[in-house]
Amino acid sequence: MARTASLSGFPEWLPEERLVELHVLDTLRRVFELHGFSSIETRAVETVGQLLRKGEIDKEVYGLSRLQEDEGTNPVKEGKADPHALALHFDLTVPFARYVVENAGYLAFPFRRYQIQKVWRGERPQEGRAREFTQADIDVVGDGELPFRYDVEIALVIAEALSALPIPDFRLRINNRKLAEGFYRGIGLDDTAGVLRSIDKLEKIGPAKVAELLKSELGATDEQAQKALQLAGIRAEDTSFVAQVQALGVTNDLLEEGLAELEQVVEAAVQRAPGKVVADLSIARGLDYYTGTVVETVLVGHEQLGSICSGGRYDALASKGNRKFPGVGLSIGVTRLVSRILSQDLARASRSVPTAVLVALANEDSWDVAQDVAAQLRSRGIPTEVAAKAEKFGKQIKFADRRGIPFVWFTDDDGTHQVKDIRTGEQVVAAPETWTPPAEDLTVQVSTVSEPAAV
Amino acid sequence: MARTASLSGFPEWLPEERLVELHVLDTLRRVFELHGFSSIETRAVETVGQLLRKGEIDKEVYGLSRLQEDEGTNPVKEGKADPHALALHFDLTVPFARYVVENAGYLAFPFRRYQIQKVWRGERPQEGRAREFTQADIDVVGDGELPFRYDVEIALVIAEALSALPIPDFRLRINNRKLAEGFYRGIGLDDTAGVLRSIDKLEKIGPAKVAELLKSELGATDEQAQKALQLAGIRAEDTSFVAQVQALGVTNDLLEEGLAELEQVVEAAVQRAPGKVVADLSIARGLDYYTGTVVETVLVGHEQLGSICSGGRYDALASKGNRKFPGVGLSIGVTRLVSRILSQDLARASRSVPTAVLVALANEDSWDVAQDVAAQLRSRGIPTEVAAKAEKFGKQIKFADRRGIPFVWFTDDDGTHQVKDIRTGEQVVAAPETWTPPAEDLTVQVSTVSEPAAV
Repeated sequence: MARTASLSGFPEWLPEERLVELHVLDTLRRVFELHGFSSIETRAVETVGQLLRKGEIDKEVYGLSRLQEDEGTNPVKEGKADPHALALHFDLTVPFARYVVENAGYLAFPFRRYQIQKVWRGERPQEGRAREFTQADIDVVGDGELPFRYDVEIALVIAEALSALPIPDFRLRINNRKLAEGFYRGIGLDDTAGVLRSIDKLEKIGPAKVAELLKSELGATDEQAQKALQLAGIRAEDTSFVAQVQALGVTNDLLEEGLAELEQVVEAAVQRAPGKVVADLSIARGLDYYTGTVVETVLVGHEQLGSICSGGRYDALASKGNRKFPGVGLSIGVTRLVSRILSQDLARASRSVPTAVLVALANEDSWDVAQDVAAQLRSRGIPTEVAAKAEKFGKQIKFADRRGIPFVWFTDDDGTHQVKDIRTGEQVVAAPETWTPPAEDLTVQVSTVSEPAAV
Repeated sequence: MARTASLSGFPEWLPEERLVELHVLDTLRRVFELHGFSSIETRAVETVGQLLRKGEIDKEVYGLSRLQEDEGTNPVKEGKADPHALALHFDLTVPFARYVVENAGYLAFPFRRYQIQKVWRGERPQEGRAREFTQADIDVVGDGELPFRYDVEIALVIAEALSALPIPDFRLRINNRKLAEGFYRGIGLDDTAGVLRSIDKLEKIGPAKVAELLKSELGATDEQAQKALQLAGIRAEDTSFVAQVQALGVTNDLLEEGLAELEQVVEAAVQRAPGKVVADLSIARGLDYYTGTVVETVLVGHEQLGSICSGGRYDALASKGNRKFPGVGLSIGVTRLVSRILSQDLARASRSVPTAVLVALANEDSWDVAQDVAAQLRSRGIPTEVAAKAEKFGKQIKFADRRGIPFVWFTDDDGTHQVKDIRTGEQVVAAPETWTPPAEDLTVQVSTVSEPAAV
């Protein structure tokens, strides 16, 4: 587990680590499908124009060039990215928006999809931040309009999905852009994006410096800055935040709308995902396409890892002519979670290979009989390998042990079969048509190792 | 299904098409794991030096550059690829070889792995050839040596895996490099790689032109060229090819070794995968790292699609100092298969969404009760959605119909529950704790539509 990736920022797992990742991926898929989300994948590449807004070169994007061209097909020319050049996607939201617009005629709206894929960012690698990593997204997208209830539902689905993973306790920290923006307008700060940008730095630089920023950059008065900070200071695991906001004495229609929306999410969460959700009015989210609900998620005791699941409502990410496709979605940082599970040994696979049974060879001529036994076991869903050489039984057992295979099967010349649990040494007569390992040995189990340690 | 990818060579599937792909991927995974193969993934990028041999610029490789650098980080400089630059992998064998060498100390050999990932090639797109596509590989790699039996096993596992897919009948066309090279040496043609290159063109240009090539480029006599072509003309679904080769009267130790190996594979296949394997002595395989068994696979009636599964034995792909890691493996072209299944309508998903049940809303206040019903159904593995709005029941049923959801659930004010099969109109009283849809409606089924049509 202490291995270092041979290319910094591009983690690779050993087979037993991959089993933990597979368990996470399978669990997410199961929960998403139980809630009626369809799987899609988008291509790994988009055009630079699709990925970058206003032609700015975003430092996080990897462009592609074809090596066979004499001078390459450098996607950057004279300091400007060619909008027609291809680049690797850096998230799954932008490609999904393009997919929805392109395929609108083939989709039934509201369209619910999950998407689990790798994304790439050219940034400096550090703990919790890789250059290649897997995201698991769910979104619901409407045609023209999308009922607010989906905001509630998405939060509940994600809470259920995260609860099913072998990870420490978590909190969805939820806020609402309308609430924040309405409040800022209500106190006379109209550059709401500017205020959000400053508030977003609260955890990094602290309230005093944020107040300075609000005053120096946005011309806020002392009182305005204090009000904005008071709002950002509100946190509640129930709907009591509503009274706290009202107590600040600010009135604004957008504020009221946002307050009612956030109340609806928190109310449902208190009932259906108790203890998993907190209204946290400091949450801003950097990207500016969010228009309502915004969410970040922390692992309790691992807050410095950053958000492991983020997203929110966007009313205008995708459009086709006059047709708008509002959506709400959340994205789980699978690689960030799996890295943490592995580095802190939070969960482990019960063995390192899928194989439950090794069929040993009594002699070189018995390979064929052994294949018959293996085929019978497999036909009943028991993962089985056949030894490749008729070495001494001790050596074949050692081979199984080294690979982590729990059972070894022996067939005598007279056709009697026996199976040995090499962990206990217990050996019993068995028939290939009927013998079954205990359920916990049939397939690899991934389970929590210990109480999650606070760090 | 007649949609065109918005970027040529980068196919994307609609949700109901993705269900067919998922079925293929799940089936392959199940078979591979039943045979004890461990899942791994490697990063999508390698260094150019790792990917390209002898520094030649291979036209198929996409290099990466970071867009934020002023002039980009063009991986090509003055017509030469920078070996330290990053590029997308074009297959899963080269990355796997690197992975084995890097992690040799953590792996138990012989190491069996499957790997299902996307790969990228910058070539001109055409039917059956995409720029981004998914491969599913299995390999067994040994430390120092690897018993030949794994060649037999790999072929059988692949035959079993392909048989489990909703595809037309297929043939594994198997040859052996030792057999071919030994034969060429035996008739006095020592540039065996050159002969293989010419023989590889047999299907494209025909025997007369191949004979010309052998004579003009390799200085073969008429008789040598004819012998080489006679060998390449041998095909047999059983071990009768051995006698046919021997009848050509060529003796060579390597030839004998290859003949015995190929006989062993075909003998086992005749018994365990009858009709699925053919000894085809024209198979050459372009890449030069193969050293024994070589395999290509065609779909019967779809031969012009090209090979859907290829690979073989490589004794020297990976090494670490004096330590050699011989391997044998096969790679299934998943995207090629799925494209064909979809374009020819060979298989279809039973519905386009995972959802089996839509819980309807009697009125806006019933959302909470509906969520309780949904949670109960989901807890028993039944994929369930809740309607977002209390529209007229007719509208809610239409919504389910449009999404392909087979059942709609109604809860009366008095707490009675009913469930309607909207395909038949049949409606029954049901309890959320016990009602279960028929097995074929519980999850999406993917099945063959019709007899595979010859093209």
